[in-house]
Amino acid sequence: MNNCTIVLFGATGDLAKRKIIPAMYRLVLDKQLDKFNIIGAALDDTSIENVLGPAKEFIKEFDKKAWQKFVDNAYYQQLNFTKEADFKKLNTLIADLEKQKKIAGNRLFYCAAASEFFCAITEHLASSGLARRLDKKDTTWNRIVYEKPFGHDLASAHEINECIAKHFNEEQIYRIDHYLSKELVANIALMRFTNIVFEPLWNNRFIDNVQIELNEDFGIGERGAYYDKYGALKDVVQNHMLELVALIAMETPKLLTGDYIRDKRTDVLKHVRITDVLLGQYDGYKKEKYVDPASNTDTFVAAQVFVDTPRWIGVPFYLKTGKRLKAKETLINIKFKKVDCLLLKDCPTDSNYLTFKIAPEAVFELEINAKKHGVPNQVMQIKMEFCHSCIVGVRSPQAYETLIEEVMKGEQSISVRFDEIEYAWKAIDAAQKVASPVYPYKPGGSGPTELKDFEQKHGMRWKT
Amino acid sequence: MNNCTIVLFGATGDLAKRKIIPAMYRLVLDKQLDKFNIIGAALDDTSIENVLGPAKEFIKEFDKKAWQKFVDNAYYQQLNFTKEADFKKLNTLIADLEKQKKIAGNRLFYCAAASEFFCAITEHLASSGLARRLDKKDTTWNRIVYEKPFGHDLASAHEINECIAKHFNEEQIYRIDHYLSKELVANIALMRFTNIVFEPLWNNRFIDNVQIELNEDFGIGERGAYYDKYGALKDVVQNHMLELVALIAMETPKLLTGDYIRDKRTDVLKHVRITDVLLGQYDGYKKEKYVDPASNTDTFVAAQVFVDTPRWIGVPFYLKTGKRLKAKETLINIKFKKVDCLLLKDCPTDSNYLTFKIAPEAVFELEINAKKHGVPNQVMQIKMEFCHSCIVGVRSPQAYETLIEEVMKGEQSISVRFDEIEYAWKAIDAAQKVASPVYPYKPGGSGPTELKDFEQKHGMRWKT
Repeated sequence: MNNCTIVLFGATGDLAKRKIIPAMYRLVLDKQLDKFNIIGAALDDTSIENVLGPAKEFIKEFDKKAWQKFVDNAYYQQLNFTKEADFKKLNTLIADLEKQKKIAGNRLFYCAAASEFFCAITEHLASSGLARRLDKKDTTWNRIVYEKPFGHDLASAHEINECIAKHFNEEQIYRIDHYLSKELVANIALMRFTNIVFEPLWNNRFIDNVQIELNEDFGIGERGAYYDKYGALKDVVQNHMLELVALIAMETPKLLTGDYIRDKRTDVLKHVRITDVLLGQYDGYKKEKYVDPASNTDTFVAAQVFVDTPRWIGVPFYLKTGKRLKAKETLINIKFKKVDCLLLKDCPTDSNYLTFKIAPEAVFELEINAKKHGVPNQVMQIKMEFCHSCIVGVRSPQAYETLIEEVMKGEQSISVRFDEIEYAWKAIDAAQKVASPVYPYKPGGSGPTELKDFEQKHGMRWKT
Repeated sequence: MNNCTIVLFGATGDLAKRKIIPAMYRLVLDKQLDKFNIIGAALDDTSIENVLGPAKEFIKEFDKKAWQKFVDNAYYQQLNFTKEADFKKLNTLIADLEKQKKIAGNRLFYCAAASEFFCAITEHLASSGLARRLDKKDTTWNRIVYEKPFGHDLASAHEINECIAKHFNEEQIYRIDHYLSKELVANIALMRFTNIVFEPLWNNRFIDNVQIELNEDFGIGERGAYYDKYGALKDVVQNHMLELVALIAMETPKLLTGDYIRDKRTDVLKHVRITDVLLGQYDGYKKEKYVDPASNTDTFVAAQVFVDTPRWIGVPFYLKTGKRLKAKETLINIKFKKVDCLLLKDCPTDSNYLTFKIAPEAVFELEINAKKHGVPNQVMQIKMEFCHSCIVGVRSPQAYETLIEEVMKGEQSISVRFDEIEYAWKAIDAAQKVASPVYPYKPGGSGPTELKDFEQKHGMRWKT
């Protein structure tokens, strides 16, 4: 794994700059890449210096020597996803570099592009000889990573998948959701299934509702051209948020590995039913770069979701995500039912909560009642917490770094299987039929004022 | 309640100096006592200054003004528990003081004496007119507090109780165990029954064993005369430790008040069965002041206890207490069963634990598995904690202060009902039949070396 070529399609994009390039640099720093080529490819007429430079500000631990090694092995090639000739040129470049550096031929293709290009890229990878369908005799590997979202609805996802499957085996295909590589997200399944104290509580007898929030304080930045076609429901709910629902709601797998987990996640997604959707758009969105001035795209979603499995009958999952809200935070709040009050007076006014904070800090919290100091028979709410990211001297690898590492290792549990994507798109396609109009909201707040009505209608209250 | 006379029998004793006098001073500081008399009574020919002075070093927040007010209203009277005349004299003194200070006549008698004197004291309280059996028309109250242990076995406890009941109503009688007044002990019941997350786990399906430890690093001090007659089993296990077992093991009461709780505690004590007892005595004990040089008294106990109720069938409770051990700490560790391991390798090596630390710090901890940072599919043990005593600006009242306050209020849940005492003595009487010889142990360690055999025999391991 220390010996490979990584091609990054969409190297001049926002995601490349902010996440993928820093993650690749980090792999060099951590000596996960030894002999390697990093090749940026995109439509722009630019240079590798201009591609890598802007990523520097997103790097946390800058090391001059590692950076130099990274730059020395990085290249840029202008490339049009629809032109086979460009791919052939790329193949020649890589073949030369591999020969020159004596790199065996492992190749990782990272498609950080809109999904409408996935099919074209894949076809050209095959036809140009850059990558080939592997069989068991192969000693080197070719793997292709597809960024989320995979398609923009059920029909387009099917189309893309059929196109890809024509050229490559499922073992070579990584439909990724970087959320599944986040430390605390990966921790959810480990925590649920390696501790005896959670399972007895993890059902509709004890859980009142589950709240998943993925709030951002920033806008769409330079991503207008992509974002305006998708919106929050397809950009975030279809993948990250439904995968979080699946991790929370899934049944116990036989083992905590690849397909066992994916089977159980799929079972949940198959039974997901989105029953109410409130949409919003922040004031000023229509004036963002590359956005249609008459755009009706959603930048905010609140949704009520049910998982129709015996464990979860009657337990609503509430999802909320939006851009330009007051704070950036991702968290899961599990609200437990109230207990019969055994006190004569001063009964607890709130439920127990179990909280997984994913961002900005990775924190695990349990909120329960305890005795109020020095006062007989009165309770107060206390928080027991474990701060994952507060452990001194332990560096949490960034999601994208873990992701590339796992692809290099050939570990598929971080990849979303097509049936998962299929069920998620089915749910989203249906959700659009129950969606509200797109209400405006002021940046820096909690979303549209209609969110209050949503709370009232469902008799719920967002904890955060 | 701000207006009463407190008589402290045994005012020159160790407990009075270290705990009761500081608690009474604290009540003055906290303005819980306004117009009052504190009267120390004991056999010694001494003065109130000599009684109060030595207690000063055990006071945490010393306030000169409050101390002066305390001293100004404190008196000493030499008194022989067996001489009625002394009680009559005391009655005259109190009547004068009450008249002079216009104190209505509420009287609290605190028997900080060995239980062999309880009957004599009680009889003389009645015959001298110091206290009387109350009826509903009474507007003032007389209450009598009996320190633990109440008797030295089942027979003596019965005898004392019959003697007391001849003279006073149950509502006037407080057989106290100051452990029930400790913040975190009182918290155990509140936590269990005001949070939904505990009850589903609280049974033999999920709990492997319960460990209760009450370890002391000091010896018997000046208490040799008393201690040598009792030993650890009767001094600590019969009351504090069995009450902790009762609080952990009891069923849900209808309400968290007086007799509802006492009924449920009693149900547990009725079903307690002590199946193994390891006794120890620290080297040097026989040379302690007032101790028989050939003493065979236990200063260390480890015991296996079962609670024969449907909830607890098969779950051992392990108790451990001793003097001159390496550290002073009181805690309850609830060890959960192991969960089936769903990992391919690196399965968790330890169980989940729920811990109530009572002393020196009041801390509530949950130990569970979580993902190891940056490593896929490996877990590590983490601790979630809430430190009760770490909350800044909140003072935890001392157990004895709460206790006297509750008696002044007439709250009986801190008092141990006679049936509880009865069942506890029955269990202890039976335990003596299964007890080991008294093994010697070195001060500053973990007890006799035979403790290892105890662990092996029962296939258990002390967590702490």
